[in-house]
Amino acid sequence: MGEFELLEKVRERLPPVGPRVRLGSGDDAAVTVPGGATATSIDALVEGIHFRRDKATPTQIGRKALATALSDLAAMGAEAGEAYVAVGIPADLDEDGCLELIDGIAGIAAETGTTLAGGDVTRAPVLTLAVTVVGHAATAEQLIGRGGARPGDALALTGALGGAAAGLLLLERPELAAALPEETVTQLRRRQLDPTPRLAAGQALAAAGARAMIDLSDGLGGDATHLAESSGVGIRVEAAALPLAPGLAEVAAAAGRDPLELATSGGEDYELLAALPRERLTAAAVVGGPKLTQVGEVLDGAGVEIRLPDGGTLAPAGFDQLD
Amino acid sequence: MGEFELLEKVRERLPPVGPRVRLGSGDDAAVTVPGGATATSIDALVEGIHFRRDKATPTQIGRKALATALSDLAAMGAEAGEAYVAVGIPADLDEDGCLELIDGIAGIAAETGTTLAGGDVTRAPVLTLAVTVVGHAATAEQLIGRGGARPGDALALTGALGGAAAGLLLLERPELAAALPEETVTQLRRRQLDPTPRLAAGQALAAAGARAMIDLSDGLGGDATHLAESSGVGIRVEAAALPLAPGLAEVAAAAGRDPLELATSGGEDYELLAALPRERLTAAAVVGGPKLTQVGEVLDGAGVEIRLPDGGTLAPAGFDQLD
Repeated sequence: MGEFELLEKVRERLPPVGPRVRLGSGDDAAVTVPGGATATSIDALVEGIHFRRDKATPTQIGRKALATALSDLAAMGAEAGEAYVAVGIPADLDEDGCLELIDGIAGIAAETGTTLAGGDVTRAPVLTLAVTVVGHAATAEQLIGRGGARPGDALALTGALGGAAAGLLLLERPELAAALPEETVTQLRRRQLDPTPRLAAGQALAAAGARAMIDLSDGLGGDATHLAESSGVGIRVEAAALPLAPGLAEVAAAAGRDPLELATSGGEDYELLAALPRERLTAAAVVGGPKLTQVGEVLDGAGVEIRLPDGGTLAPAGFDQLD
Repeated sequence: MGEFELLEKVRERLPPVGPRVRLGSGDDAAVTVPGGATATSIDALVEGIHFRRDKATPTQIGRKALATALSDLAAMGAEAGEAYVAVGIPADLDEDGCLELIDGIAGIAAETGTTLAGGDVTRAPVLTLAVTVVGHAATAEQLIGRGGARPGDALALTGALGGAAAGLLLLERPELAAALPEETVTQLRRRQLDPTPRLAAGQALAAAGARAMIDLSDGLGGDATHLAESSGVGIRVEAAALPLAPGLAEVAAAAGRDPLELATSGGEDYELLAALPRERLTAAAVVGGPKLTQVGEVLDGAGVEIRLPDGGTLAPAGFDQLD
């Protein structure tokens, strides 16, 4: 199968084109009319480093690739717009596998209102994806970077932590699932394999006055450090306030791991961490969306401290890995 | 060296940020204010498929990766805006190699006024690049796709053909260079290793009324076929009118190849092919830019015919390769 034939089959599987897109996939470039400000991010995913094909189906890999890219837009408070996907296909991924991958990407695109506006397909030694996403807002001021947190701001977190790390443990060591309800195991694995970009929560936080925001891909400790450094502030997280994913404690116990360590450094939860004035917390919660919890506060100074219930502190784990 | 440390060194090497960029590399996403229409394209380049590290330096690889992506914007008549680059780094490319690659990308960015507004760095089995470029125009109508050519339009070509194919032959078979002036050899190799995106020519063609445009990456035969199919027209190219790159005839003779075949199916010249009303040809030429030559015309019907001086025709070579 040639590149153009494959691209033609891919185009047949794409969700409808959004209103900003005047010319979609299939030309030299897509044409859009953004009409305000855009947030744009690129992410690369490489087999053997970011995913393994014996642990995830092509559809799951495709879903997660676009979902994690969209998570960056959620962290800006942007509305999802367009995605551009480059896929490097290895010799042992057949046409059906390619199309399942595209179905995964197209599925999350349809669920989030994202237009797949362009792509490129090439051969590669291992399955490789690069996803560029473009999100939208009426003005640049409505898009929230990492650098605006101020001392006194509340630190708010969407959803719960540690689910993705527990799900990874369950995928790597299936025997850990034995003592857990099947529903819990399914949910935790799904947190690892099929994360949800918090797009509506991000827009609500931005509209409510969030001053700085980041999505938790590296883990709370590492990502809070990014936010603190960009804003020139310190951050204190109260460990007792952290919402832990249901089942995390049981998986951690079975694996001989500390649930708090998994929650703060496990990464890949793709929840949002935002700094905003305390009085705006209520306004930032989305009805029917993930729970919004105050988990700490922004301080004068520098660095991130995770305060334990016994008064001790947990230093954020190292996170500067080239992966 | 960790990802963040490398990214910090990369950011130090970037050219200045353009006026549309409100928040550049280093946050969850870049923030831009496009203020009109955008053209966006993604390209992936994989070592061993699109380039070889024993034939091109990291700097050359970086330059070509961004230049060929920008060529897609040139083919839309867009002004260069922002680039987002994902790099997969193999174990045998050291820090200096990475930074040379970035210097190549940053060099062509500076030359074309492109802001490197975001990126991602990961490990990969071979050097892998994915480049997304965003170009700008005041309105969507000013961006030229492949689908608007009309019977009677003139077919115009920037620059000359076959230089990249001849350069590739010289790189693969250095003995062919023996009988050629050193200057010619250097120029032809450069056409292969360091192509120039025809951004100004593309904007001039768009402003002059080009109805359809494409850049020649696959080769004249293949790319003219794309344009003909998208527009629902036929295309006749006059072989005698095709400007051939200086030195192509000599390299072809030394290699036992047909220069016309190299010119029409060699690919990678990254010249622009445009359909426009005949009377607009003069207005579309850029002073000081590449020569604009009428090489054929748009016809009723379908398909591409390359008419030889003896009255015969050359069928465009097959071009649907997954590479």
